[in-house]
Amino acid sequence: MQRNLTLSIDAMGGDAAPGVTIDGTAEFLAGRPDAHVLLHGDEALLAPLVAAKPELAGKVTIVHAAEKITSDMKPSQALRRGKGSSMWSAVEAVKDGQADASVSAGNTGALMAISMLVLRKMEGVHRPAMTALWPTLRGRTVVLDVGANVDADAEQLVTFAIMGEAFARATLGVERPSVGLLNIGSEEMKGHEEVREAHDLLRNSPLKMDYRGFIEGDDISGGAVDVVVTDGFTGNVALKTGEGVARMLASRMREAFTSSLSSKMGAALAMSGLKRLKDFMDPSNVNGGVLIGLGGVSVKSHGSADARGFARACELAADLALSDFRTEIATNLARVGTSAPAAE
Amino acid sequence: MQRNLTLSIDAMGGDAAPGVTIDGTAEFLAGRPDAHVLLHGDEALLAPLVAAKPELAGKVTIVHAAEKITSDMKPSQALRRGKGSSMWSAVEAVKDGQADASVSAGNTGALMAISMLVLRKMEGVHRPAMTALWPTLRGRTVVLDVGANVDADAEQLVTFAIMGEAFARATLGVERPSVGLLNIGSEEMKGHEEVREAHDLLRNSPLKMDYRGFIEGDDISGGAVDVVVTDGFTGNVALKTGEGVARMLASRMREAFTSSLSSKMGAALAMSGLKRLKDFMDPSNVNGGVLIGLGGVSVKSHGSADARGFARACELAADLALSDFRTEIATNLARVGTSAPAAE
Repeated sequence: MQRNLTLSIDAMGGDAAPGVTIDGTAEFLAGRPDAHVLLHGDEALLAPLVAAKPELAGKVTIVHAAEKITSDMKPSQALRRGKGSSMWSAVEAVKDGQADASVSAGNTGALMAISMLVLRKMEGVHRPAMTALWPTLRGRTVVLDVGANVDADAEQLVTFAIMGEAFARATLGVERPSVGLLNIGSEEMKGHEEVREAHDLLRNSPLKMDYRGFIEGDDISGGAVDVVVTDGFTGNVALKTGEGVARMLASRMREAFTSSLSSKMGAALAMSGLKRLKDFMDPSNVNGGVLIGLGGVSVKSHGSADARGFARACELAADLALSDFRTEIATNLARVGTSAPAAE
Repeated sequence: MQRNLTLSIDAMGGDAAPGVTIDGTAEFLAGRPDAHVLLHGDEALLAPLVAAKPELAGKVTIVHAAEKITSDMKPSQALRRGKGSSMWSAVEAVKDGQADASVSAGNTGALMAISMLVLRKMEGVHRPAMTALWPTLRGRTVVLDVGANVDADAEQLVTFAIMGEAFARATLGVERPSVGLLNIGSEEMKGHEEVREAHDLLRNSPLKMDYRGFIEGDDISGGAVDVVVTDGFTGNVALKTGEGVARMLASRMREAFTSSLSSKMGAALAMSGLKRLKDFMDPSNVNGGVLIGLGGVSVKSHGSADARGFARACELAADLALSDFRTEIATNLARVGTSAPAAE
């Protein structure tokens, strides 16, 4: 069932590019021997690095792009001046049908702007959304929007629910993902008007969605649902707040374990347990934000991800490229867009 | 400088009332021997419990209130039917000048509604805000609003900043608390219109406030500022999301430490370190949400707080009652309300 896949990689994006991107590419290809990779960037720089890895021979094609999008470039600058860059070239290969999906660890705002311009929005999607894969007590939960938009009206929230559901099916392997709407309190009278209206739309929609109603902030990490729908402001604050709490607790944990000799010895003995916890919290295990609602797949890797993290982002891109998630989104959008009035 | 203080306590509110509230009252009084407590509730029930603690003799007066606000009561019901309740009676004692502040561990919505009705809003405050004391890398940060309102316009955010600053001075003991506005991204063009407008108002205000501009979600736990200002929807989601992440990590930590014999031994050895961490994360160490912007002090304790947690809420109420925070708020509100046009 796994057809041949070509991945388009921005070799120059990220804090430690191109070293990490090439190592990550090699790790990805080790797990997907049938895949092919287009590596976009400065050929003079990339060729010797690729040649140094014999396992990449025949699996990687370098696509020369002389320019680079820097991390301090504004989205508007990236759109004006980015055309010869490795990032633009990587996304364009998807648009031109030379690759099935693209991955970049470069400037987030620039990647969003370029992806939006080059791949364009899917029909029926007015506002693409940024997804996050959130670690929970039960596994992972898809949260969207985590920052592509500042706000969202009721219909946009419904679109996010449709996109998130299809995305969860493709990435989490859950056949019928459960969906919740982020709110404060679980009483129906609470919350913004937009949220309450979206709740009514989802509850009465012709979608075959496992919609579970309102959830609260603590339900995200509790793993109450597979997909958490919210506007980009709230989602971004929630994501960063959660990261901050995890970082603070990790730091306090280190302190606690170095506060006395006996706890130092304890920490040494407990190492295997702590290692597991660290793995669980490690962003490179859940790497890959995706701007969904576009005419093609463009995955964002953390700028600071290591080779393993970058490989995870590549795997996510491959899973999405091989799935039917965009067709599913289109079908469901058509269902809410046209069947609702017709059903009256 | 510590004048005689009378605290008004709803003895019947909370999951384990009145046992926990009386134990908590005793713990509070042990630390403040000059204080007096009015204990509101069913006299027949309370009298023997108080008599069983000789250390309470002469320090506690029971105020009989036959009724109780239950945890499932809606705010509107509490307002209609709550008049003979221990909660109402406790708040009313503050209004009548018999007590300096009130504490209840009962139904949050009911307490907010009753406090608002009985104590009324301070002049110049259109929307009181709920505060949280958030544990950070550096100590505690005041976050508001965490749910008293669903949204907030720019002027309300400025009012929250003023109230939060005075509250932080009274509770954290910081002379000149730093204040940040919660947003996504730190570029000035980002975020809601309300947030950008509030930013301009605070930056150009005649307040002598240490306003630090925009902060992001991860800055809360990082302790970047002493006061984090946001609307009630975002603040509530952030607070609950943070609690959820902490709970998930604690649960993963337990798993990690029981996953092997060596890590069990390690955990035993590391106990003192872990105990510290648990203390730090324990809500009873930071208990006490306060609805600020009212004509008197009404503190909410967690419904599930233990005696120590309840005592902390009482201490917070006492600190607030003995501070000048309401005068400071009134002064600053007058400053932004009237001096801004006059200064032109």
